[in-house]
Amino acid sequence: MSKTIVLKQRPKGIPKTSDFEFIEEEQPLPNDGEVLLKTKYVSVDPYLRGRMRDEKSYIEPFQLEKPVASAIVAEVMESKHDDFKKGDFLMGMLDWKELQVNSGKELRKLDPRLVPLSAYLGILGMTGLTAYFGLNRIGAPKKGETLLVSGAAGAVGSVVGQIGKIKGLKVIGIAGTDEKVAMLKDEFGFDSAINYNKVTDMASAIKEHAPEGIDVYYDNVGGNTLDAAMKNINRFGRVINCGAISLYNETEQPTGPRLETTLIKQSVKMQGFIVSNYEEDFLEGIQQLSQWLLEGKLKQEETVVEGFDQIPQAFIDLFNGKNKGKMLVKVY
Amino acid sequence: MSKTIVLKQRPKGIPKTSDFEFIEEEQPLPNDGEVLLKTKYVSVDPYLRGRMRDEKSYIEPFQLEKPVASAIVAEVMESKHDDFKKGDFLMGMLDWKELQVNSGKELRKLDPRLVPLSAYLGILGMTGLTAYFGLNRIGAPKKGETLLVSGAAGAVGSVVGQIGKIKGLKVIGIAGTDEKVAMLKDEFGFDSAINYNKVTDMASAIKEHAPEGIDVYYDNVGGNTLDAAMKNINRFGRVINCGAISLYNETEQPTGPRLETTLIKQSVKMQGFIVSNYEEDFLEGIQQLSQWLLEGKLKQEETVVEGFDQIPQAFIDLFNGKNKGKMLVKVY
Repeated sequence: MSKTIVLKQRPKGIPKTSDFEFIEEEQPLPNDGEVLLKTKYVSVDPYLRGRMRDEKSYIEPFQLEKPVASAIVAEVMESKHDDFKKGDFLMGMLDWKELQVNSGKELRKLDPRLVPLSAYLGILGMTGLTAYFGLNRIGAPKKGETLLVSGAAGAVGSVVGQIGKIKGLKVIGIAGTDEKVAMLKDEFGFDSAINYNKVTDMASAIKEHAPEGIDVYYDNVGGNTLDAAMKNINRFGRVINCGAISLYNETEQPTGPRLETTLIKQSVKMQGFIVSNYEEDFLEGIQQLSQWLLEGKLKQEETVVEGFDQIPQAFIDLFNGKNKGKMLVKVY
Repeated sequence: MSKTIVLKQRPKGIPKTSDFEFIEEEQPLPNDGEVLLKTKYVSVDPYLRGRMRDEKSYIEPFQLEKPVASAIVAEVMESKHDDFKKGDFLMGMLDWKELQVNSGKELRKLDPRLVPLSAYLGILGMTGLTAYFGLNRIGAPKKGETLLVSGAAGAVGSVVGQIGKIKGLKVIGIAGTDEKVAMLKDEFGFDSAINYNKVTDMASAIKEHAPEGIDVYYDNVGGNTLDAAMKNINRFGRVINCGAISLYNETEQPTGPRLETTLIKQSVKMQGFIVSNYEEDFLEGIQQLSQWLLEGKLKQEETVVEGFDQIPQAFIDLFNGKNKGKMLVKVY
């Protein structure tokens, strides 16, 4: 038998475990040209919340009563595919299933000797690439500039800040606990960090840490934090709209101060993106990130939860800030 | 004697003529290295409203009891400056005075035989350049794309739409009267236009005119119109934040729907600018605009009000949509 996690109902506000359902299925069998895969690591990511809404977006919404899917590392248990053999590790967008068959068309073979397998879901996967391309292509950071990162202790934010330091910027992080603030400074080399749970006026807090103003703001959270950053943005500032986790669970259309006047007065650019926009250049990104990783310039932080049954809760915990760095579920 | 217009008090909401005061001064006399100038054409522009607030911006605020200034074409009445002689026409940022002396340092000599003098304040001046650089550098329009322009019958918008047509785009304008809508289509070659005063749901109206969605939105007005455009923005859309005239007279911080989720989902760029960001390339812009003008590909529309005393009212009328194309005051 094999377990599958399906979307039982569309979450209202912060997702609950009851929004998901576990189903037992017969063990699937691969046909010619297919592989049987056993899920090893599951990536849970804030953007999945968006796919749980029945809304047009860059990717189609999850269907009710159908499996949820995310980036997964899986082991080949049986292969009827010429390119793959038993024991290979593959990754790609796969269903939240213990066992599944796949044609392998959109899967990538991993080398477990180069880096730990989990790194392919984090620093060498979508999150690392998201940090790399968002910061470099949209932020175009220049040595000596000041970079502010929200969600700084998260999977993307922690890599963004480290790349900022590699490139010679002053880096300020925003995170939600003193422990995370300490980690940003001590482990990842941020120049300073703000605990948003201890601050009543975020705009003033940013100004204290960056009296010179913000040149590049890498935004993972949106909402009030974005507003506060915009009050400190310098002329020709760049805002990278990577995520808006503070809004993902809103049930009404969120409102806030209009930003167009600031954009004009300060000649600021705000740009949203998804990592697949840069798909053609992924190799460049992976090579650069691997090099920094091997040179010890880049560190990865992971929060690894164990057990297939923990996948929904691990996903939910993203919205409670339970993770430091990349949130993963290790299935076996 | 010579009249000067000073800022009497900072406007609250839409400016009133009582916010300005006319003062009579002795006729000034030029010293060595100076010219005596007689104001011929005065440009009134929405951005001047921002300078009437006591707020940090890209340009310092006007001082109370001091003259208001804007782009002006003036004739040299007397010259003690080697580069200029009596009868020359000069332009630059000058005070709202009938007569003034100036060192000429930041003034440019105009050729009245090439184009009418008023064109130097419009299509070959700041407004033409604002249209040209905003659309080209930020919008990066591609043939076959759909361009939406708000404030389309205004000084900048009417040029933006025409450049859009020259570049092979489908162009849709938004303006405030049926007469302006007709002008956009018949005179400027827009593919279609929307009268915002006859529309209750702007987002649906845009969708009707552009079922294929908007690739480039050139925004002169901000506020609700921007929100409606964002509901129709395509993936990889570009929003050029040129002006926000709908907000300039707000007395409270304007609020609206948060846009970061749309920016992310659709990989959209929003970018504000002021024309002087592109100062190094003004010559390129002027040459291209002049060529299009001489080839008859670009038409200019002007609303010319006569008389020095009409300057404040002409400025105020910008916020009531009284102008078609560039709003100018002809002093003599």
